[in-house]
Amino acid sequence: MRPHIVSLDQASREEAIVQEAVNSFDRTPSPRLRTLMQALVRHSHAYLREVRLTQTEWDAAIRFMTDAGHLTDDRRQEFILLSDVLGLSMQTIAVGNEAYADATEASVFGPFFVDDAPQIEQGGDIAGGASGMPCWVEGSVRGTDGNPIRGARIEVWQADDQGLYDVQHDDGRIYGRAHLFSDDHGGFRFWALQPTPYPIPHDGPVGAMLESAGRSPYRAAHLHFMVSAPGYRTLVTHIFVEGDPQLEIGDSVFGVKESLIKRFERQPVGSATPDGRTLDGREWSRTTFDIVLAPGDV
Amino acid sequence: MRPHIVSLDQASREEAIVQEAVNSFDRTPSPRLRTLMQALVRHSHAYLREVRLTQTEWDAAIRFMTDAGHLTDDRRQEFILLSDVLGLSMQTIAVGNEAYADATEASVFGPFFVDDAPQIEQGGDIAGGASGMPCWVEGSVRGTDGNPIRGARIEVWQADDQGLYDVQHDDGRIYGRAHLFSDDHGGFRFWALQPTPYPIPHDGPVGAMLESAGRSPYRAAHLHFMVSAPGYRTLVTHIFVEGDPQLEIGDSVFGVKESLIKRFERQPVGSATPDGRTLDGREWSRTTFDIVLAPGDV
Repeated sequence: MRPHIVSLDQASREEAIVQEAVNSFDRTPSPRLRTLMQALVRHSHAYLREVRLTQTEWDAAIRFMTDAGHLTDDRRQEFILLSDVLGLSMQTIAVGNEAYADATEASVFGPFFVDDAPQIEQGGDIAGGASGMPCWVEGSVRGTDGNPIRGARIEVWQADDQGLYDVQHDDGRIYGRAHLFSDDHGGFRFWALQPTPYPIPHDGPVGAMLESAGRSPYRAAHLHFMVSAPGYRTLVTHIFVEGDPQLEIGDSVFGVKESLIKRFERQPVGSATPDGRTLDGREWSRTTFDIVLAPGDV
Repeated sequence: MRPHIVSLDQASREEAIVQEAVNSFDRTPSPRLRTLMQALVRHSHAYLREVRLTQTEWDAAIRFMTDAGHLTDDRRQEFILLSDVLGLSMQTIAVGNEAYADATEASVFGPFFVDDAPQIEQGGDIAGGASGMPCWVEGSVRGTDGNPIRGARIEVWQADDQGLYDVQHDDGRIYGRAHLFSDDHGGFRFWALQPTPYPIPHDGPVGAMLESAGRSPYRAAHLHFMVSAPGYRTLVTHIFVEGDPQLEIGDSVFGVKESLIKRFERQPVGSATPDGRTLDGREWSRTTFDIVLAPGDV
C-alpha cells in the first residue's frame, strides 16, 4: 500500500482528535478499564488514519455490525465468529496461555462446549451413537517436570461425520462429548470418532465477508480437549489430523499449531482392537496424544 | 502502563498468528478490501497483545457487542454511538475532509438529519413551532478563493430547548430543520433557536461504559449545517456556543473545533430585530457564521 501523505496541519488535526478521545478516559476510576479504553482509542484511530477510511466504508462497517447483532441469539454468535475469523480468538488464547517449557499448546475454545457432558470410564466411547468412523484415542497427562498427573479431568468433544455437534440440533440430543479422569499413571484411553472438516456458520455477514475475501469457511478436522488438574493451568486445545487437506487450505479460525497435528492411523477392517471391541466389519483409526500441563491455578 | 515482557518463544507464537491471519486475506480480489482487512488484523492484534486481553475481558467485549446489537433498530443505533464516543466518527470526518486553506472545518453528521426538510426563504424560521429562545443566524458562503458562492444549498437542523429533535418523537412531527439557498452575494439569514446541550441516548451499553469511565454523555450545544454547491466539497459541520459550560466538560462525541465556537449575543427583551419581527416580549440572540468551502465534487 502506498502511504497517504497528509499535510502537517491535517496531521495535527487528526492527532488532536486522538488526544481528546484518550484524555476523555483520564478519570476512569478502574485503572484496568482506563488502560483498555485508552489503548482501544489509540489503536482504532491508528487504523482509521492509516487506511484513510471513507464515510462509505464507515457506513458499511456500521451496517455489518448491525446485521451481526440482529443475527446473534442464544444459538448463533456472529460476533464470536468475527473474532474467530480475524484470528482474535486464537490470539486471546495465545496471550492467556504463554509458552511454558514443553507445555502443550492451547487452541480456541469454540462455541460447542457444554458443562455437563456424561462421564465415561477408561476405554469408554464418547460417540454416544453419532455417525462416523470409530477412533481409538490414548495418551497421558503429565506436568512440565515429567511427573504423571493422576485424576486430571479430561473433557472431550467433537462433531459427527456430517460436521455437526449435538447442540446444533434443537431436540436436546447428546453425542460426541464426555469427560473422564486420567488413571494412576496419568494415562487415558477412549473411543471417539475420526474427526471431519466442517464449515463455521457462513450464511451471515461473516460468511459474506469470507466469500468476498476468497477465504474458505472450513475448519480443519479436529477433536476438542479441555484438561484440568489442581495446581496446573487449565489447557483448552484441539488435536488435528495429519494429511487433512484443509490444513493446507487453512483453518478458518487459525486454531492449528504444528505440535497439535497428530497421526491418525487407519486400521484395516477386522483388525484387532486395543480393548477387544468388535466393530462389525467397520474400518477404524487410532491416535496418541500426550498432554503436558504448565503449573498454575486450575 | 508497565509494558508486559513476553519470552521470545511467546512473541514468535503471537506473531505467527498475526501473520497467518494477515496472509488469509492475500487472495482477496478487491485490493481495497484486502488493505482494509489486513490493516484491521494488524491493528486489532496489536491492541490485544499490548493490553494482554484476558478471556474474561474478551467475554465482556462479546457481551457488549451482543447487547449493542440487540438494542439497535430503526430508531436507535448503538454502534454509531459507540463510534461517536470513541472519537471514531469524528476521526472519519477529519480523514474525509482534509485541511484545505481556510476552508471551514467539518464536524460529525449525527443521526438526526433528514433528507426532505422544508425549504425556507431568506429570513425564514426553521423552528417550526419548537420551544426555545429565538436566534437570528446570518453569514455568507464563499470559496477559498474569496469569491462568494450564490445558490449554495444550506441545510440546518437542531434540537429544541428540551434537547430533543423532531424525529425523536414518534408522531411524525417536523420542527427545527429547513433548507435555504444563499443569495446572489453568497449571503444567508434565518431564524433558529438558541442551541441547548443534551445527552446522547445513554440507557444502553454505551451509556453504561461512559458511566464506568466517569464521562458525561452530554453534547455541547450546537446547530447543524450541511452546505453544498457544484464544484465544492460538501461541508457537514456544527457551530457551538461560546461560554457553554459543556465545552469545558467535554463534548461526548468530540465534535468541537475552536474555529466552530461562535459568539451568540443575547439581546434584551423588546430590542429591535434585524427583520422587524416582533417577539412578544421574549429575549432573543444572534450569531454570525461565515462559511468557506473547499473545491471538490459536490
